[in-house]
Parts: sequence; C-alpha cells; structure tokens
Amino acid sequence: MGSYHKPDEKTLQGLKDLANKLRIHSIKATCASNSGHPSSCCSAAELMSVLFFHTMRYKADDPRHACNDRFVLSKGHAAPVLYAAWVEAGYVKEEDLLNLRKIDCPLEGHPTPKLAFVDVATGSLGQGLGAACGMAYTGKYFDKSSYRVYCLLGDGECSEGSVWEAMAFASHYSLNNLVAILDVNRLGQSEAAPLKHNVHAYQERCKAFGWNACVVDGHDVEALCRALWDAEQFKEKPTVIVAKTFKGRGLEGIEDKDGWHGKPIPKDRVGELLDKLQSKNQGPEKPFHPKLPSEDAAPVDHTPILLLTPPEYKIGDKISTRKAYGVALKRMGDASQRIVALDGDTKNSTFSDIFKKAHPDRYIECFIAEQNMVSVAIGCATRDRTIPFASTFAAFLSRAYDHIRMAAISQSNVNLVGSHCGVSIGEDGPSQMALEDLAMFRAIPTCTVFYPSDGVSTERAVELAANTKGVCFIRTSRPDTAVIYDSGEKFEIGKAKVLRQSDNDQVTVIGAGVTLHEALTAWHKNQMPMCKTMIFCVNIRVIDPFTIKPLDAATIVVCARATGGRVITVEDHYKEGGLGEAVLAAVGEEPGIVVHQLAVSQVPRSGKPQELLDMFGISAKSIVAAVRRTFAN
Amino acid sequence: MGSYHKPDEKTLQGLKDLANKLRIHSIKATCASNSGHPSSCCSAAELMSVLFFHTMRYKADDPRHACNDRFVLSKGHAAPVLYAAWVEAGYVKEEDLLNLRKIDCPLEGHPTPKLAFVDVATGSLGQGLGAACGMAYTGKYFDKSSYRVYCLLGDGECSEGSVWEAMAFASHYSLNNLVAILDVNRLGQSEAAPLKHNVHAYQERCKAFGWNACVVDGHDVEALCRALWDAEQFKEKPTVIVAKTFKGRGLEGIEDKDGWHGKPIPKDRVGELLDKLQSKNQGPEKPFHPKLPSEDAAPVDHTPILLLTPPEYKIGDKISTRKAYGVALKRMGDASQRIVALDGDTKNSTFSDIFKKAHPDRYIECFIAEQNMVSVAIGCATRDRTIPFASTFAAFLSRAYDHIRMAAISQSNVNLVGSHCGVSIGEDGPSQMALEDLAMFRAIPTCTVFYPSDGVSTERAVELAANTKGVCFIRTSRPDTAVIYDSGEKFEIGKAKVLRQSDNDQVTVIGAGVTLHEALTAWHKNQMPMCKTMIFCVNIRVIDPFTIKPLDAATIVVCARATGGRVITVEDHYKEGGLGEAVLAAVGEEPGIVVHQLAVSQVPRSGKPQELLDMFGISAKSIVAAVRRTFAN
Repeated sequence: MGSYHKPDEKTLQGLKDLANKLRIHSIKATCASNSGHPSSCCSAAELMSVLFFHTMRYKADDPRHACNDRFVLSKGHAAPVLYAAWVEAGYVKEEDLLNLRKIDCPLEGHPTPKLAFVDVATGSLGQGLGAACGMAYTGKYFDKSSYRVYCLLGDGECSEGSVWEAMAFASHYSLNNLVAILDVNRLGQSEAAPLKHNVHAYQERCKAFGWNACVVDGHDVEALCRALWDAEQFKEKPTVIVAKTFKGRGLEGIEDKDGWHGKPIPKDRVGELLDKLQSKNQGPEKPFHPKLPSEDAAPVDHTPILLLTPPEYKIGDKISTRKAYGVALKRMGDASQRIVALDGDTKNSTFSDIFKKAHPDRYIECFIAEQNMVSVAIGCATRDRTIPFASTFAAFLSRAYDHIRMAAISQSNVNLVGSHCGVSIGEDGPSQMALEDLAMFRAIPTCTVFYPSDGVSTERAVELAANTKGVCFIRTSRPDTAVIYDSGEKFEIGKAKVLRQSDNDQVTVIGAGVTLHEALTAWHKNQMPMCKTMIFCVNIRVIDPFTIKPLDAATIVVCARATGGRVITVEDHYKEGGLGEAVLAAVGEEPGIVVHQLAVSQVPRSGKPQELLDMFGISAKSIVAAVRRTFAN
Repeated sequence: MGSYHKPDEKTLQGLKDLANKLRIHSIKATCASNSGHPSSCCSAAELMSVLFFHTMRYKADDPRHACNDRFVLSKGHAAPVLYAAWVEAGYVKEEDLLNLRKIDCPLEGHPTPKLAFVDVATGSLGQGLGAACGMAYTGKYFDKSSYRVYCLLGDGECSEGSVWEAMAFASHYSLNNLVAILDVNRLGQSEAAPLKHNVHAYQERCKAFGWNACVVDGHDVEALCRALWDAEQFKEKPTVIVAKTFKGRGLEGIEDKDGWHGKPIPKDRVGELLDKLQSKNQGPEKPFHPKLPSEDAAPVDHTPILLLTPPEYKIGDKISTRKAYGVALKRMGDASQRIVALDGDTKNSTFSDIFKKAHPDRYIECFIAEQNMVSVAIGCATRDRTIPFASTFAAFLSRAYDHIRMAAISQSNVNLVGSHCGVSIGEDGPSQMALEDLAMFRAIPTCTVFYPSDGVSTERAVELAANTKGVCFIRTSRPDTAVIYDSGEKFEIGKAKVLRQSDNDQVTVIGAGVTLHEALTAWHKNQMPMCKTMIFCVNIRVIDPFTIKPLDAATIVVCARATGGRVITVEDHYKEGGLGEAVLAAVGEEPGIVVHQLAVSQVPRSGKPQELLDMFGISAKSIVAAVRRTFAN
C-alpha cells in the first residue's frame, strides 16, 4: 500500500471541525429528547470523524452495500454520534436528529437495524466485537472481499468476558481485516472503569490475546489517521487502537467529571457550550466524501435453498435427532455455499462434525465460548452474506441468552441448534441438561422454535430454518429414536401432525422429541389386549407439534374438543415456559379445555435416561398413569 | 512464613503414589459407570494429590467447615478425580465410587452440593473461578479469615469470557488468598484447545489481567509443592499456576491423544493400564492427613433477619420499586451484617447505591460483567457466610442465565434483583428493556420470583428474599408509582392481594408492577359516572400476585370463578413464559376459566413510557378495551 502520507493541514482541520460538529449534533439531539448520553458521544467524536471521513470506504447513499466497510458501534449508548456521522455523510437528515428517541423516529436510544447503516443492534455492552468478528471472518474467508470491519468499544464494556472471547477468536483466525478501537474515556456509568486511564494495561491485555495493539491520543485526528493507516498495513493480526479520551470532551465543567453518564446537557448550559464548540471550528466547511469501496463482494442469491433430494430415512430406522441434524446440515451445505456451520467444541456431540467433514471451509470452530459463537454467527448473517447454523448443547445456549435477545432486536436470521435437551441425556447430570431452553427461546419475539422428533422431521426443520427470517432454534435430543415419518412427508412451520387418532379418543396427548416417543408407547400400551379388559383403558390421540412456536393452536383445539376437552402435555423440560405452557396459551381462551402438564419439576440428577424419564414423571408409564388419573377423578 | 523447605523424598513419593491412586480410582469409577471423563482426571492427578494432601488446610471429616480452605473444581467433568481425593481423605467410601453416576448415588456425573465437599455445582465450564472469587472476597473482606481458595480450571474453559471477568475481578480486589490452577492438557472435547500447549500464552494473558503467574510441569509433584507454597507467600496479587499436563497421563496409547474425551477406558485395556499404574507405586502406603485450618471464621447466626422497623411509606407516596429496593436493602443491611450487595456499574440506576452509601464495606462493585457478578454472589453465599443481593438491569441478567441455571443446581441462596423491566423504561429502547426475565427465572426450579408493585411490598419482598432458600429474583420497575399498601401490610410468598372487589365483579384482572397500576386506573375508569351510563361498563376485580412463582393459584381460581371464569392478565413482558402463562398454568386444570393475555408481542422501541404502554397494548386503555371486548363477543 506504499508509505504513509500525513494528511494535509486542511484535511486535518476539517476532521477536527467535523468532530466538533458531531459533538454539536449529539448535544442538540439529546437535548431535544431530554435523555441520552452526550458525554459518551463527545469522547468518541474524533474517532468517529476520522473513521467515517478519512479511513472507511463505503457508499454513503447505500449504507448496506455488500462491499462497504462495516462499522459496529459496540458502545451503543453513543448512538447520537453515529447518527450524527450519517448526517454528515448525507444519509440522515439533520432535522431528524431532533426526533431522537421519539416513538415515530427510527433514531432510537440505541442503534437498531431499522436504520440501514446498522447491521446489528447494540446497547447490551460487550457484544459488538463478536459480531464484528463474524463480519470479518465472512469477509476474509467466505466473501474473500477487501471490505474491512471497524468496531468501536467503550472501556467500561471491556469488563465483559464476551469482549475477550472475541479477542481470542479474532487473533486465532488472524482477522487482519478487523480493527477494534477502544474509547478509553475512563468513566463508566456509576464510577470509573476498573482500569481507569491505564491505557497500557488495555494494550497489554490485547497483546496477550494476540492482537497488534497501539496506544493513541483519541482526540488527536492526525494520530488516529496514522494508527488506522498502520492497522491496514499490518497483515498478521487484528489491530486494536487503544485511544485515550475524555468523557464529555470539549464541554467545560463536564469533561472528565463523574456524574454525567446518560445525562443531557442542562438547558441553562447548552447555549454556551454549543457556542464554544462552534467557535473552535475554523471552516469554511469542506465537504467530505468517504472513499468508495472495491466492488469485490458478490451479490447474494436469495433463491430458497432446498434439499437436493428427500431425507433418506426409512420408518423404523433408529437415529437421534442430534445426529440427523448433522446429516441435514451437511446436505443443506451440498445445496448451497451460503450455508455455514459453527460449534463450540461440541461438534462430535452435536454432530455438526458431519458438516465439517464435508465442507471444512465453511465450518468455524468457536471453541468453548458460546456467547462469542452466537455473536460471530450473527455477524456472519449480516447483509445476508451467509446462512449460519451454530450448535452446542442446548443447556449452554443459556450462556448466550443476552446475545440471543439482542439477535431478535438485530433482526438477525441466525439459526441456533441445541442438542442434549432434557433429562434423557442421562448420566452426565443436570449441568448438561437443557430444561429451560424452550422457555428461553419462546420468549424471543422473532423466534421460530423447532422441536423435531425424528430424522425426517429434523431434516425438514433444518431446511425450513435456513429459509426462515428471524432467529430459529432447533432443539435436538441425545437418544436414538425411531423414524416415524415417511421421507416424503411435508412439514410446515406451525403445522402439527396428528399421529394417532380414532373416532373414540378420550384424551389428547402432546409430546415432542423423546416424550413424543413415550406418548406413542403409551398409546401402544393402551392398545394392548390386556389393557382393553381393564376399566381404565382409554384411547389417546397423539400430536407431534413440530414447532413449539408458532404452535398449531387450531389442530390442538380441534383435537382437544374431540377428546372431551382433555389434554395432557408431556415434555423433557421444566414445567415453566415450555410445551405445556405453550399449549395452555393456545387453548387459554377456549372454555372447557383442561390441560394437565407432565414436565420436570425439580433439579434432576444423574442416572440412566429411562430411569430419569420415570423418576421425573415424563415416561410412557407416567403418561398412562396421567391418562388414567384423568378419568379416576 | 519462613523459607521454603522441600518436602522429603518419602512425602514426594507418597504424593506421586497418591496421584496414581487417584487415576486408578477415576478409571475404575468410570468403567463401572461406563461413561465419564477418565482422561481429564488423569491430567489433574498430581495437581489434586498435592493440593489435597500437601497444600490445603481442611477438616477431612467436616468438609463444609467454615474455616476450611475452599476448593472449586471448575472443570467439573473431572468429577471422579475429586471424588477419588475424598476417598483418600477418608470422607467417601471407596466402594461408592463404583456407583458413580447411578440414580441412587450422590456421586453424579458432575459435582453438586449434594456432596458436602462441593460448594458450587460445576459442569458448565468457565464458572468456577467467579464463584471462587466470591469465596475469596468473602474470606478476605467479610470473614477476615485465613482460609484460602483454590480453583482448578481446564485449558479449554479458558475460552469462556467469564474466566477473564473473574481474572479481572480477582486482581482488581487483590485477592491474594485465591489460587487458580490451569490444567493445560492441550486437548478439548472435539479437538485441541486454541492455545494448545502454549503455556506461556496463558501466562501472558493472566499476567496482563493482573495476576502473579507461573508455569510448572503439572505432573511434577515437587514443582507443584513449591509453586503452591510460593503462591501463599505472594501477598500482592492472586496467583495462577499454569500447569502443563497431558490428558490421559499415564495411560499408554491414550495419553495426549485425540478422541479420548469423555470416554471410559475400553474394557479390554483396563486391566493392563491399571496394572501399570499400580506398578509405578512404591508403597508402603503412607496415610496422608491434611493440615488443619485455623479456627478464625465465626460460625453463622441463622436467626431470621427482619427489618428493624416497618416500611416508612404512606399510601399515595410516589416511589419507583427500583428505588424502594435500594432503601429496603439498606435497611436490611442495618439489621444484619450478613447482608451484602453487588452491582454491575448500574448502582445509580438500580439504587443499590443507597446500600453502598450506608454500608460501603459490604458493597462489591462488579463492573460491567454480569456473569461474574452472579458467580461472585454465588460464591459469597456458600456456607451461608453472607446473604448477597446482586442487582443490574433485569435485561442484563440474561447475560448470566447459564450461571443462574447453575445456581439452582448449586442449591444457592443467591438473591438477584433486576431493574428497568419492560417497555415502561421508555426512551432507551429495547436493548435495555427486560421482557423475558420472568420466563427466564420462572424456569429456574428453586426460584422464587417476586414482582412487587409498590414501596411497601418491595421492602417486604427484600426481607422475604433474604430469608428464603433457593434463588430469589426481584423484578423492579423504573417509573415512580403510588404506594398502595399500608406500611403494616403483611406479605407472604405465594399469597396474592385482591385490591379491588365487589359482589358483582365480572372480570378478574391480574397485573404486576406498572401494569397493576394500569389495572387500577382501568378499574377507576370503570367506576366513573360516565362509564356507569355506558352499556359496556363492567366491574373488574384487580389482583396483585406479589410473587409470580409460586403463584397464588387458589386466590386466582376463586376470583376467576367469582367473575364468570373471565380472567385478563396484563404484563410488561413478552407473552411467553411470564405472568400470563403462569396464570394459565395455575388455572389450566380448571374447566370454565378463560384467560386473555395482554403482553408485549413484538420487539418494542424507543418512546415515552405511557406511549409505549399504549402501543404495546398493556395500558389502562388497553385493559378497558379488553374488558369490553370480553363482553362484546
């Protein structure tokens, strides 16, 4: 790239002026909204002016263009300075800034992708760098494009472990197209951040985590120009620029003072402070045009991705749904280059290793760092560059719940797959059993929750997830279970399957995964000649919901009515927030339907799978007993 | 402490022999269970023998004694080697090892506090060090006792950011009574850990995070004795011993080989491998007696902790429940020294700063690291040393969901307080709004979920939580709301309050927090003379559930029946897993009760609180409309 040329004085002065303009915009906007974080904007003003008007390459009129450099504002509470930058870039109207945080304005308190220049929502701290890693990995290894990724972090959020997961990931994969900028303004929300202005401590930590790390004065535009230029030359590692800054920079009486986090400038001081900022600017205003990107990222093919051939299972074959997931993902990978897989060092348990073996270039090992895995997947999914599937034990997706929550706000199409659900995993014990994952994912607003019960439905769940907007979660199970569907069976989101029914059914039983098989066994027990002679023999109707969210309320209500309003749900999950409550919600406005829940109701333990299903009351035996109790009362 | 004396040869040989005995026990146990992680035990055998039989001070017959040194096995999958150590210490019967992972044996797949020598459950990786930090902080600053805390981590789990949150915390608070031992055995579950055997990279990272860090051969008992002695002398910082080890050490054909994670030794090889280990031992067996601790930690006073005087609010006073929480916690702190508070740099928003001002020595600033905050709180609560309350925005407790899940398995009595729930926070937008926290906490089996609606009930919630076993969660709200209870009002867990009722109520409305006040407004609207003349005027009964889990099903059912089976729930939470579904579950087996849920059903946005309550259909206006719709149909 040649040697460094210092920008001319006019350019440097222009960047300084721009920084002050960003301050002025941020102050005006937060005064108008009477809330927000102007002091956090002011520390980052020079960082933003240099990034947006000297370093980054992008089409200002097409912020989401595939070839643009990416920018992630990890310190999302500095949103106004981001909006201000896009005002200066010409994309946001200046007058809209005065509608900041209003109910009809997309300029919200923290950035969301309602704005075309935002790829991922931020505001829960420490999540931006992981998403930036996903973008940088995609740029370097999948898109093989020259776009670069810039992530601006606050110092306070560096206390979040997820930042260090991302740091480790970025250096492990030599993401030299990634630049992190730490805005070390010393002050957190309620007191100074633990390292205060010790920029060298940050530098040492970043270096130890494998980054090229330099320290700069974050208010010196020339130093920033140089540091960002250097970062681009450095080919071995990602670069972090540790920028020493002052919170509230440029605001007398506020700069570097406690007690100004998240507070607009008092009305009686605004005029004076704005005047002072204005007076520093030397104009005449020079219009800055950002550099344009190279057009080297291919447009996305949005054609639906379908399995090339139907599933290859026969009814009665035994396969766990976790293994069927691996097979399915590999086959989806055969169908499209856009399918990529991630795992957190559990690939031989989740069976994502089947995908890895077939498509090693599209597998990202994320090691034991589930938060970062989810963030990376979210980053990979931005601008529809890839369709990521990230897997681990479903229990460990709880590690990333904040990230999953933010994925919904980010409008992400990420697909998450959790294996080893429930007590049916057996001996490993409760720490490895997911028993709250359905509650977790059902409460994610954009989320489709798949809970397939055999190989065929698992394969279709993966196919549907790849083509479904929003977060998708697929819950898979450890034990081998019988294939129950013909390979030609069609599946739809929100459409249940009625597996057993007769004209004189008396109870509807709804199970999924292992408990669906237990329900089928219970049905079988009730069909036994022995049973037929007993007074408590009851015909049961058995439903496989396929998706828990959306749930096929219509089918459930019809079946419930056909069976005297009696419904039993049985799930390998805690009683709260799972299948049972989903069914309760679906029939809640229907009088005359009663729902009895079979679910795990206390912390379980180690044991053999079948013993545990019995102990926690969700086995065929428990179902039969519950059915009979329904009539004994 | 004087100068270092190298242990005599007999002692060293004894420690070596013991290490092999731990290997032998681990192999036999996992062969008997036909599952488990013997190779992960073998890498740690010398670490365990030196720790348990040379370094640590504890009463082997009273593992949970207040004065004992603490040990946390963060790499919980190496459970058998821990159980083996306690066999050798004389606390566990050797024959019980052969019942490992069986349904009637407390020696589970991963350690849980069913065993007296386990303080916190492990098995979800990366959580042990944070809990150890809590124990060490408690030992140093609250108990002011000489007990020390040892935490054994795997290398794989060092990819978890939570480890680095704990690292930063421990050095920030100079926890020189804390020792971390990294068992760097190179191999993860499915492939090598990212840093492989680069022990110096681990050392650099730990140093950069402010620790005293040394590298040792983890199979050299003498080197370990020395390193652990040195750690005790080092007074400025916590010490980490980066131990280079080999997975499956001592097992020919398995040692340092891929593919042996979580696999018992094949039956056809066990005899030979055990013989080899046995043959290395030079016996005669020397009985090791661990050193005894100093008796310098006071016994715990288990008397219930009660507010010294009733709450000081008057009906009609305006106070947010978040502020009432701060006041309450300060007052509980007046009543007992055991009450401690933690926060994640949000103390001026959660109002835990009221406690801090009054009791600065019992406040732990955890900075922006919610996972670690929860782990530290769990550690503080072990052995009932303290009663911790940890607070942040409820949305950010989602960051620690895996830790909260593990808290239940740990039988922890930790209290978590989440402020800023729901859309009623207003302008900051969805990233700051907790809308899934009730779903999250309801699905925690030991959890009591408080959702107080005014100052008086908040104060009583805090008092009850302090005296309640299991995880407690208190959900607080941002807006000021009226005090509705007399200061003498009595509150019980699982007991709702019927706030408005008459003989001709037609619908029961259940709300909590802000939505309870909206329900009261709706009641009031329906009492207006104007309303009385309208055809759709309906008398509503209003219930405050106080606790969402357990929920007062009896009161709800009685009220529902008294109001024609009609129930409306209204909550500032997503529709799934919250108040509405809790009510549905409570009445699910009651025919003739219908429940209509008002809840947030999509990702919300920035705006003014009242605008958002209206927009998402949970305001008084929405309640009135829903009540009227109930009769319009």
